This record gives sequence, structure tokens and C-alpha cells, in this order.
Amino acid sequence: MKAFVMKKIGEVGWVDKPVPECGPMDALVKPIALAPCTSDIHTVWEGAVGERTDLTLGHEGVGEVVEVGNLVNDFKPGDKVIIPAITPDWNSVEAQAGFGMHSHGMLGGWKFSNIKDGVFAEIFHVNDADGNLALLPEGLDPGDACMLSDMIPTGFQANELAQIGYGDSVVVIGIGPVGLMAVAGAALKGCGRLFAVGTRPDCVRVAKAYGATDIISYKDGSIDSQILEITGGVGVDKVIIAGGTVDTFAEAIRMLKPGGVLSNVNYLGSGEFIKIPREEWGVGMGHKQIVCGLMQGGRHRVEKLTQLVVNGRLDPSKLITHRLQGFDKIEDAILLMKDKPADLIKPIVYC
Amino acid sequence: MKAFVMKKIGEVGWVDKPVPECGPMDALVKPIALAPCTSDIHTVWEGAVGERTDLTLGHEGVGEVVEVGNLVNDFKPGDKVIIPAITPDWNSVEAQAGFGMHSHGMLGGWKFSNIKDGVFAEIFHVNDADGNLALLPEGLDPGDACMLSDMIPTGFQANELAQIGYGDSVVVIGIGPVGLMAVAGAALKGCGRLFAVGTRPDCVRVAKAYGATDIISYKDGSIDSQILEITGGVGVDKVIIAGGTVDTFAEAIRMLKPGGVLSNVNYLGSGEFIKIPREEWGVGMGHKQIVCGLMQGGRHRVEKLTQLVVNGRLDPSKLITHRLQGFDKIEDAILLMKDKPADLIKPIVYC
Amino acid sequence: MKAFVMKKIGEVGWVDKPVPECGPMDALVKPIALAPCTSDIHTVWEGAVGERTDLTLGHEGVGEVVEVGNLVNDFKPGDKVIIPAITPDWNSVEAQAGFGMHSHGMLGGWKFSNIKDGVFAEIFHVNDADGNLALLPEGLDPGDACMLSDMIPTGFQANELAQIGYGDSVVVIGIGPVGLMAVAGAALKGCGRLFAVGTRPDCVRVAKAYGATDIISYKDGSIDSQILEITGGVGVDKVIIAGGTVDTFAEAIRMLKPGGVLSNVNYLGSGEFIKIPREEWGVGMGHKQIVCGLMQGGRHRVEKLTQLVVNGRLDPSKLITHRLQGFDKIEDAILLMKDKPADLIKPIVYC
Amino acid sequence: MKAFVMKKIGEVGWVDKPVPECGPMDALVKPIALAPCTSDIHTVWEGAVGERTDLTLGHEGVGEVVEVGNLVNDFKPGDKVIIPAITPDWNSVEAQAGFGMHSHGMLGGWKFSNIKDGVFAEIFHVNDADGNLALLPEGLDPGDACMLSDMIPTGFQANELAQIGYGDSVVVIGIGPVGLMAVAGAALKGCGRLFAVGTRPDCVRVAKAYGATDIISYKDGSIDSQILEITGGVGVDKVIIAGGTVDTFAEAIRMLKPGGVLSNVNYLGSGEFIKIPREEWGVGMGHKQIVCGLMQGGRHRVEKLTQLVVNGRLDPSKLITHRLQGFDKIEDAILLMKDKPADLIKPIVYC
Repeated sequence: MKAFVMKKIGEVGWVDKPVPECGPMDALVKPIALAPCTSDIHTVWEGAVGERTDLTLGHEGVGEVVEVGNLVNDFKPGDKVIIPAITPDWNSVEAQAGFGMHSHGMLGGWKFSNIKDGVFAEIFHVNDADGNLALLPEGLDPGDACMLSDMIPTGFQANELAQIGYGDSVVVIGIGPVGLMAVAGAALKGCGRLFAVGTRPDCVRVAKAYGATDIISYKDGSIDSQILEITGGVGVDKVIIAGGTVDTFAEAIRMLKPGGVLSNVNYLGSGEFIKIPREEWGVGMGHKQIVCGLMQGGRHRVEKLTQLVVNGRLDPSKLITHRLQGFDKIEDAILLMKDKPADLIKPIVYC
Repeated sequence: MKAFVMKKIGEVGWVDKPVPECGPMDALVKPIALAPCTSDIHTVWEGAVGERTDLTLGHEGVGEVVEVGNLVNDFKPGDKVIIPAITPDWNSVEAQAGFGMHSHGMLGGWKFSNIKDGVFAEIFHVNDADGNLALLPEGLDPGDACMLSDMIPTGFQANELAQIGYGDSVVVIGIGPVGLMAVAGAALKGCGRLFAVGTRPDCVRVAKAYGATDIISYKDGSIDSQILEITGGVGVDKVIIAGGTVDTFAEAIRMLKPGGVLSNVNYLGSGEFIKIPREEWGVGMGHKQIVCGLMQGGRHRVEKLTQLVVNGRLDPSKLITHRLQGFDKIEDAILLMKDKPADLIKPIVYC
Repeated sequence: MKAFVMKKIGEVGWVDKPVPECGPMDALVKPIALAPCTSDIHTVWEGAVGERTDLTLGHEGVGEVVEVGNLVNDFKPGDKVIIPAITPDWNSVEAQAGFGMHSHGMLGGWKFSNIKDGVFAEIFHVNDADGNLALLPEGLDPGDACMLSDMIPTGFQANELAQIGYGDSVVVIGIGPVGLMAVAGAALKGCGRLFAVGTRPDCVRVAKAYGATDIISYKDGSIDSQILEITGGVGVDKVIIAGGTVDTFAEAIRMLKPGGVLSNVNYLGSGEFIKIPREEWGVGMGHKQIVCGLMQGGRHRVEKLTQLVVNGRLDPSKLITHRLQGFDKIEDAILLMKDKPADLIKPIVYC
Repeated sequence: MKAFVMKKIGEVGWVDKPVPECGPMDALVKPIALAPCTSDIHTVWEGAVGERTDLTLGHEGVGEVVEVGNLVNDFKPGDKVIIPAITPDWNSVEAQAGFGMHSHGMLGGWKFSNIKDGVFAEIFHVNDADGNLALLPEGLDPGDACMLSDMIPTGFQANELAQIGYGDSVVVIGIGPVGLMAVAGAALKGCGRLFAVGTRPDCVRVAKAYGATDIISYKDGSIDSQILEITGGVGVDKVIIAGGTVDTFAEAIRMLKPGGVLSNVNYLGSGEFIKIPREEWGVGMGHKQIVCGLMQGGRHRVEKLTQLVVNGRLDPSKLITHRLQGFDKIEDAILLMKDKPADLIKPIVYC
């Protein structure tokens, strides 16, 4: 069986692997559509999760069930399914407490292409099929549906963590695919004015289509000074960080109202500390919440978000700029993500 | 000064009244646009708030400030303002607890056309101007803006009380103007499938435009049996009651999932008891929440909801089917509400 | 293997049964201490869950693991464990949504002595051992620990559903063992004045020991009239129903402030409708929430509540009025629950 | 009229001032009991709020109303009242949004001894009497009641911000009077194991009396290493910072579970940045919330917290180590706070 792997830090390639075994609660799935993620790039070229040898990459995909364990009730071979990037152990105490993504330890629900092989293989394994698969609705393009694995749940969670309410003013920093989904998700929480921070023309165009009312370029000055000027020094209700670095937080706090929320869903790859400016944080008394989180995983969440797509409230296809044909195009797709041509938002591979 | 009043239960008319006095925190306002509300009909022809003599009617309006008290900081004569139907006493303990609409007693924030004169007068009084007025944004039609007095906050609150989350399935029972705003507000909370229950063709058309995916007619059978059939017996996540009677609740509970919420914003004018079916309520253990509430009032809320309109997320003009010209057309407008011609959703009077 | 069963509605007795089979995720447990519950009485003598034949009774117990399935990681034979009355299917969509007690359908997490054999057997089966067992802490009396199966989680959930905050005034209606735990739990949420409604002298004494500040007897008039008189007509912030009937709700709504919560954890065994008085419910606009729920089940919850006991914040032994020795005393214990002698709160059987 | 003031940074003293004027919504109050606060020390000797000239100090007090404005309904001369340290403008949009302490700008509800004269005067002024005073209950010692001005609401808010639930493990860093109230408040939210971090023997003794189960000394190693060792590397559910510096946050994050909350109520007097360790924060995905806030102010809050005291759930007298007699002893009291003798927790002055 062919799999596209991280051979070691800085190197990818194809290897042959045995078909994985299917436990009693699990499923084996063959891919229909796959998408690479910026996390794959971090994993391979930045060593973000540490050294790995021949780890199959990929955690975004739609596929067809080929085998299920004998304790699986709700899925059978032939079912077309969406696979969430995060596949919790649902009976863990963490999941029972509402944090399945941290089952058995921080980020422990992130298994694919991290602590076990990912989905870029001719057959891949999914733990807890009943808990972690969702049926692909009839008529939904499998490539579009791939956005339900990670981009939509990650971007949308930012808005839930931020507790966006009707009419809130919101800044979304970063308009790559996750940031764009944060923009779409903020509009779908009934925000008011929605500032999107970014410069790439295609991303700007899509941000507007998803509901951004204002575009801010960091080339025109610091983000916070621009936002404070526009808002007459008042700032905004919510700031979502979906791009940038550990240094982005200081700007975010400065443009945030007391009682506001800073919500981060950006993977922070380097830097020892996030730095919160003491004075603008109200000397520790300003009620400026700081929250962050890995996306929720599992079946229920994918089913819910799928309802947004099938009921016409969210069109994920706007994210997809490159659609490649053939399982072996995975390699091209991941290199696109690595090289980030100007017109790229998100590539998809139909297998 | 002319005012359009409830002379007694069952009778309306014009009277002359002195211009109201303006307290140190208050404002006097002359109307620019006014709208009658179904509550005015309840008040006059059903005696809903009890007997009243020459009570000025009306609680939905946009106007121009003509006088402010000496403790008012943020408004001045000439300012064009939106007036919320509910004008809390903001320093009451109830408001401090988050329930300004019940300041100094249940429903105590409802002052206009209830415990003091309403807005259907050449000059009307607003308590606590800084706390209860909001500036009319430039370029926003005053008639459309009248929908921010009551229809939008009442309908939208239903969705907040229902805690609608991404992808939730929702039923809205009743698609008069409040129900239509509940529909629009559910879509603006990112619901999934959205069933609107109603039959009048104009309302059905507008419900679809605001985001309803399915229309249910009570003429085709009980609502709950239809919803349960469509959902394969599972029911929906949230039910919003924006029309019907005390008997509507039993149907609502039957179609609601465990863990769901029934949210009522319908004024219940008659009947001794709301009846909750014991078995379908899980013999008292089904986690089917029942919530209700008068709209939030005050400046902050209107300002927030105004952001939805000025940022293009909500178009209230779809509600307005009749636009009348001239302050004296109030009478025609209220009779329209009373007679409910087939093509009526909401009338507006430009003064 | 001996088991104490419901032979049919109205009849209990001992039968021989085969030892249950242990699935790959499950455990078999032999009892150390067991307690009957009022629900067992409802089940047998009121037919509350319908007809059953030779259904093993009981859902409150502490035991020793005798066998685990091969997918169980955290428990092994010899471990002493607390068993929650509710044992959810943790990978169900309902559990993922936060409602494990309704996994695969309303009340579906309630398996013991309902849809499968209960714990009153020499060996009993527990589904999903890792998800549903909790270790018995060293030094904790197994009889006292039995209160963690149902009485504590049921009573304490009432306070969570009621969202009790610092200083809230609370009425707890019913001071049987669940009501007493609601009293203790309200004090452990920092309530202020705490009215307990009941008359049995032993229960009254224990209610005071758990934090009740006032005792109300329904023999002195309707509960709501007494509470309204004491509070000067204002009412209370929260009402918890842990006893009574479908008719108790009307009284509860009458004594509740706008913005308050009525929280029910009482099993409602008869009556077609719960009746909510329309006017006192603010004609549908009074913000008087009505919530109810089956206890949360599972390991995490038991572990959390156990922390209250081992850290000395809650002493469950005050509930236990009768301690019987020997597995065969189950029968006596259940008849005690049925006959309710004046000095009974809760009996325990050490096996 | 005599007032005890900050003459300039680093200097205090007595001055004569005119009696303040009483606006239509306001009250004038003469003190019955007063307490200095660590904030007064920061204000004077660290210049925490900037330079001030002859600013009357003090924001914790109980007094007798001597005059009220003509719009005040609920208080009259002769009433004995508790005065909260924070006195919001209740009709501000911030207060309407739930953040009265930030009315008209961050920390804007903090008026006494900050943006207007404080309570250390023979007569002091309270803005919005109906909104910001609370009656002193009969039989409650005025000195004890002074703890309701700031120590109790500040310490207790920490637990609300931390969303402490039944059985949560909690660390409280700092056991000065605010930290001790955080300890008491955590127990009154039903926490489980409760680690208090501090070394002063009197504070340790009181921390245990208020519910701490474990005492941690920073002299025995870093706090996080001790907590992680005790908890087997798992960490705790909630960390409350009520002492320390901007550097305390890194330790707090390290000992916090994913899904946990770090809640700060410590005034952070120096340092440019609070530093959050990137890796232990889950590279931005660990769901470790960081919250902070100035105490809630106003009447409703004081009334609620007073209920804890009058119902015997909280005994503030354990905080008070020094009780001085005579208004002129303010000076001694503030110097006690400045010099912090070993046996000091909180001094009170009876006037």
C-alpha cells in the first residue's frame, strides 16, 4: 500500500506500508478527496511535532469505508464519510469534561499525522468509527467536504471561543483558509463590523465574499493603531488571531475593549513567550479574556457543521483555488502549500 | 399637543395633552417614523394590560430630540435617535443582575403605552436618555430603523435564549414580524435546517428570504407530527415560539430533542396554564429547557443590533409592507394591525 | 448467581441468573455496598418504566472489579470502584453534545435496572469500564461512597441547572435524600438564604446540618404564599424541585423572581401535564427559566464529586439512617424504601 | 471637614476640605468603619494611578447617610450603608453590557481615591445612591461589613471568572486578604482540593480555616513543580492569582490542565509584559483560558455577597487582625498596611 510520508524532518516521499489493522471499534477508509494543511508543512519542514520516521502525512479527507470493527454500529463498507482531523477518545475523562481534543493529554485528540499515520495513504485507519466519522451528504462535492475536516471547525471554533454576539465588532488577523473560515463564522454569528487583516488579493476578495466589511493591511501601520483610529480609540469587542506570531497578541490586546475576548486558533510555531502588555490589559483588571484552542473533533461536530453547508449558509468552495486529480498528486499539493504561490488559498486532491 | 390614545378598553382616538415634562436625565422627542405593534392591539382590544384612560399608545419609533435634562451627556436637541420599546431603569438591582426589562418588577422596563404614555404623540418623553436612546445612523431609513425598537430585539432575543449554535436545527412557530425576525436571527446565529411554521404567502416568501429552509403549515397536520416525520423521529435542537397560544407548548416539547431548548417570545394573552406534556418532557429528566423573555431594552442593545443593519447583514425593510405618510396616519396604521389584511406584515408611518 | 429482581410489576424476589458476559470495553463487578433507590420503588410498584420480567434491580453501588475486557486500560480485577447509576455510551452524538445521559435517545444513559440488569446481583456488568467506573478512594467507607452513584449527582445537578450564584436565595422543595443533596449542593455553590420544604423531623435536622437556613412546612399553607410573605412579595432567585408532583410547578413559578430558574430533578411519575401559570410566568415574557434533567453519569463526574467528599466539604453519611449487613439484606432494604418508616432517609447494604 | 489624603506620590496627610456637593442621584455619607487597602499603598507609594494632589484616600467603608439627592428613592438620611469600592455609572453602555466596572472606559467604575475623593473623610460623596449603596443588615458588625466593599467581591470574583465547578482542583497564589477571600470563595463554589500558596503563619492558619486543604510555600521550590509533582504531572483545573508579579503567570500556566482557567485579580503594578509560555499553552491550542478583572461594584453585588455573611456561610472577621478606634486612626491603619507587620492581615478603623 502506498503512503505519502514525512521521511524525517525536512524530507517527504512515497513509501510502501502494510494495510493497517482494524480494531473492534475502528474503520479502514480509502480516500476520495484529500487536502494538505499548513500543519503538514510545519510538521515536515519546521519539525513542529518533533522527529518522525516515515510518518504518513495528512489529516483532512473524505473517503469510503472499506472495513469496520465488530463493535461499530453506524457505518459499513461502502459508506462515504467525512473524517475530522481530530479524533478523540470519547470515553476519556477529558472528553467527558468537554475537551475531547485533549483526550489523554494536551492535544491528545490530534492523532493523524502526529501520533499515528495520517490519511495520505491508499487505506487509512480511523479510531472509534461511530464516534469519529460522519456521512458525506448526497450531492456534496467531496473536495468541498474536505474543508469540514479542519478548516471549517478550526476557523469556526475561533468565533465560539470569542463568544461573538449580535452586532459585535470583530477583527480577524490572518486570512489564510483558517482565517477566512473565521471571517465566515463571525458573519454566521451575527457580528457587526468585521475587519479582516491581510494583503493577498485573492484572500481579500474571498474575505469580503465571506462577510468582511473592512480590510486592514499591516503594511499601512500597526494593526492596533489602525483599528483604534477607525474606532475613535474605543477598540473592538473581539479579536481573532488566525495568523501571525507570538508577537501578534500585544497588538490584539491593545485594540480590544474591556470585556472583550482575544481568541487564538493560530498554531504558534516559535518563540518562548506570548507577551501580554500589562497596562493595556488593565493592570490585570481589564476583563480582556484570552482564549485559545485546538478544533473540536468527532462526529457530532462534523455533522453540525455539515448542516451549514447543505443548508446553503456556508460555501466552502470559495476556499479551494486548486483542484488536482489523482492520488499521486498529493505530492504536488503539499508542495503547493509549502511554496504558497500568490493565487493559492487551498488545494484539493481527488483520488 | 396631539396624541393617539387608548380611551378605554376597545376604543382609540385622538386627544390633546400637555407636552410632557423633562426630568434631569430624560429627553423629549418628536417622532420621525412610528410603527404600531400587535401589543397595541392586545392593549386596546383585549385589555391585556388592564383598563387605561387616555393612555398614549405606541412604543416603536424613531425621532428627533427636542429637549434633554441637565444630567444628559450624550444627546442634544436635533439628534436623530432610535427609541427602544423597553426603557429600563438602569440602576435598579434587576438591571444590575442583567434583567433591565424587569427593573422594579416583572416587565417593569416596559413603560411606553403601559405604565406611561407611549410614542404616538407630537412630543414624547424618554426616561434616562443616555441609557435608552441610540443615534440613528446616517443613511438608515427611519422607517426601517423603527424595526430596531421592538421587532428585531424581540425576534433576535428568541435565538439568544435558545442558545442557537452552528448547525442547530430550529423550528420557528409563527411568522408574523417577530417570528420573521426570529428566522433572520436564527440564520445569523449559524443554524442549520430552519423550519418556519406559517401559511400566509407574503410571510412565507419573506421567511425564505430571511433564511428558512422549510415551510410547515399547520393545515397539513400537527406541527410536531410533521417535524418528527421529517426528522425520522429525532426532533430538532431548538424550538422558538413566536405565535400561537398556551397550547403551542405541548407541540413544541414533543418535537424537541433532549438537551434542546424551547424559547418563547410570544405574548400569551389568555389561558390559565401553559401545559408541558410530562412524558415527552422526559418525566422531568429530559433536559428540555423552557425559556421566555421580554426583549432587552436600552441603548447598548439597540446600538448592537443597529450594527447588523448598517453592515448589511440584516435588511429590515422586507418586513415593511405598508409605508404611510403623515403623523395622522397612525390611526390608519393601527387599524391595519387590527384588521390584518392578507398582504400586511408591518406598517410604518413617516411623520 | 443470585440476583434480586422485579419479577413483574408489583412483585420482587430472588432468582438465579447466569454470570453476565464481559465485552471488550466492559467490566464485571461484585458488590461491596449497595443501596436501593426510590426509582426502584417506582419501577416495581408503579410500573414506571413499563412491564419487565426478572429484571435485576438496583443502580447504586460500590464493588470490586472481577473481570475486564481486553480494551480496558485503566481498571483491573481487584480494583474497588464506585459505579454511577447512569453509564453513557460516550461516543454517541448525544454524549459529544454534552448529554451523555441521553445517549441514543432520551434517558438512554440510564441502563441499570431499566434497559439491562441492575447491580443487585452477585456479579453485575458495567458497560465501558474506562468511561464509567471511578476508583474508590482509600479510606472512604463504601456505604457512604454509594451516595456518589445517584443521590449526590442527582441532587447536585439541580444546583448546576439552577445556575446558583453567590448569595442567591433558594427554595428546595422536598428533603428526601435527593433534596437533601440539593440543599448541601446549594450551600456548596455559595447560595444565601436557603429554604428547605419538608416536615419529617429527621430530614429537617439533616437539612439544617447541610445548610438550610429556614424550614417551610406545606402544612402551614401553600409554599408560595409562605415564601412570598417572608420575602415581602419579591420571591426567590432559584427554586429546586426534588419532591412533589406535576402540580408543584405552579407554586414554584409563583415564588420565583423574573430572571430566576426553576430546576427540577424529581421523577414525575404521573399526571399528563406540568402546568405553568401564564400570568405569573410573565405572560410568556418573565424570564423564568424552567429546566430539568437526569443526572450526569460516567467516570469524570463521579471523580469530581468524590473530591468533595475526600476533601471534607460534603459528608454523605448524614443521609444514611440504616446500615444493613449481608447481600441478602437487599430485600429488607428495598422494603424499607417502600414502607418509608419515619426515621428512614437512606438505607445501605454492605455485601 | 477633615480628610486623609495623598498629598503627592510618596506623601500622605490630613487636610481640610469643603463638604462635597450632593447631586440629584447621589448621597453624602459619614463613615462608621473604614479600612485601608493595598491599593491605597500602591496609589501613594508606587504612584500606581499617577500623580495626584490632595486626593482623599480610601474606598472601603461603612457609613451613615447624611444627605440624598431628590431623585434618590431607596435611601434616606440615617440609613446605615455599605459602600462598594467600585461605583459604576449604571446607564453607561459598558454597564448595560455587563461591565459596569469599566463604565465610560477601562476601570472607569473605580472612582473613589482614583478619579474622585475617597472615603477617608468626615463626609464623603457616593454617586448614584440607589445604584451603589446597600443597607447594612441589623446585627452585622460594621468593621466586618467593610470587607464587603472590596476584599470579598474581589476575591470572590476570581472564582467566578475561573468558573469553578464541583470538585475542581484549585490553586490560589497569594493569601493576603484578597487571596484568602478567593480561598473562601472557592470552597463556597464546591471546589475539591484547594492549594493555597503562601508562607505567613497567620495567613496560613486563616487559609485553612477558609477551606484550603494544602499549603504550598514558594520557599520549597517553584509552585508549578510542586503542584505538578503532587498531581502526578496532571496539574489542576483552575489557578487563581491573588499575589505575585507579571512573572507568576508562567508558573500558573505550567500547572494548569488543558481546559483549565487562570484567573487573575492581582493588581499588576510593574513590568511591561505578562509572559505566557508558548509550549505549555499548547502552542496556542491548549484551551487554557486567561481571565482577569476588576471587582464588580454596585448595590446588587454587595447585597448578594452580604447574604453569604448574614446566612453564616462566610465569616469575614477572620481577616481582621487589627481593630482601631477613632476616625483619626486612619493614619495608623494605612501605615500598618504599608509596613505589613508579621501578624497583619487587615486592619479596621471604627470612626
